[in-house]
Amino acid sequence: MPKLDFWYDLASSYSYLAAMRIETIAANACIDIRWRPFLLGPIFKTQGWVDSPFNLFPAKGRYMLRDLERTCAAASLPFRLPNPFPQRSITAARITLVALDEGWGIDFTKRAFSAEFGEGRDIGERGVPTSLIAELGHDPERVLSLAESPDNKDRLRSETDAAQKLGIFGAPSFVTEDGELFWGNDRLEAALAWARHREAAR
Amino acid sequence: MPKLDFWYDLASSYSYLAAMRIETIAANACIDIRWRPFLLGPIFKTQGWVDSPFNLFPAKGRYMLRDLERTCAAASLPFRLPNPFPQRSITAARITLVALDEGWGIDFTKRAFSAEFGEGRDIGERGVPTSLIAELGHDPERVLSLAESPDNKDRLRSETDAAQKLGIFGAPSFVTEDGELFWGNDRLEAALAWARHREAAR
Repeated sequence: MPKLDFWYDLASSYSYLAAMRIETIAANACIDIRWRPFLLGPIFKTQGWVDSPFNLFPAKGRYMLRDLERTCAAASLPFRLPNPFPQRSITAARITLVALDEGWGIDFTKRAFSAEFGEGRDIGERGVPTSLIAELGHDPERVLSLAESPDNKDRLRSETDAAQKLGIFGAPSFVTEDGELFWGNDRLEAALAWARHREAAR
Repeated sequence: MPKLDFWYDLASSYSYLAAMRIETIAANACIDIRWRPFLLGPIFKTQGWVDSPFNLFPAKGRYMLRDLERTCAAASLPFRLPNPFPQRSITAARITLVALDEGWGIDFTKRAFSAEFGEGRDIGERGVPTSLIAELGHDPERVLSLAESPDNKDRLRSETDAAQKLGIFGAPSFVTEDGELFWGNDRLEAALAWARHREAAR
């Protein structure tokens, strides 16, 4: 099966929309998705942004809120903007890397996005990821200790560096095996079509 | 028929994509489109941008170019980035206001976008709009004199102010009669659906 990399930041509102629908449409398209959490913050910093563009540019931020309300309603997804926005997603991202190794990373990702953007809970608070780990039947202490090991911290930094080298500047982003980059939940279908077309051409 | 305002800057690459397809899909949706040229530059300035975000943020600029190549190919539209990008669109926008009054504004808009993004010609040069006016069977001298009258210049400023008051921060944007704002060529279908739904609810 052709592969498509799904790059997301757990603080990214439009990544929430993509995460909640990618499994079904990728299965229909017979594309294998690799879930790749990373951090947008360090990438924004190299562009001179110290905050989310949705905060730096208020008209864009107001629009995003309304657009998310409409788009989530159309997808029958609950939506509630968490406070603060954006959230500190570093702990959740580190946990996700561990969980992906152990086979429950997709469940954790979706549960974290639902808590954050469906229920408006603060995933930057250590207590929320802790309770989500337990909800999913794992030992929070063990998982957090792996998540915060020096090796795992390095790994998240490497993934973020890899995202930047691929030209990623926002989330969600999708990258095909031949290096085509697609940005935004709205481009998911185009990314899947590209991955399928490339496979057919081989 | 319900109305939808189509706000565009003649320098905006994604407005080219929207302009070339809006007539057909709006006709199928039974929505009346009001074509409203404006200038993004003054709005960008209030956000602290002195250039297009596609130039200020190089990764985003590189992505836009590739995304336009792919999206235009999928729509069977020619694409060639003009130099400089973005173009100075003020003269073309003033002409469009005059042409819209006279009933040939949509033709002029599409011809200007094709010259700019299909052929890579510089519409900021006075010679290009002049030749397009003539191509469309009008007298360039007469039209340019109306376009550059103080009243018409004021009108373009008023339209740009109106766009900003509506919360517009990018182009293309679509605004329904009940004030819903949709941003980007990718949101055209959602804007038409909103306009139709609103009409059905009356």
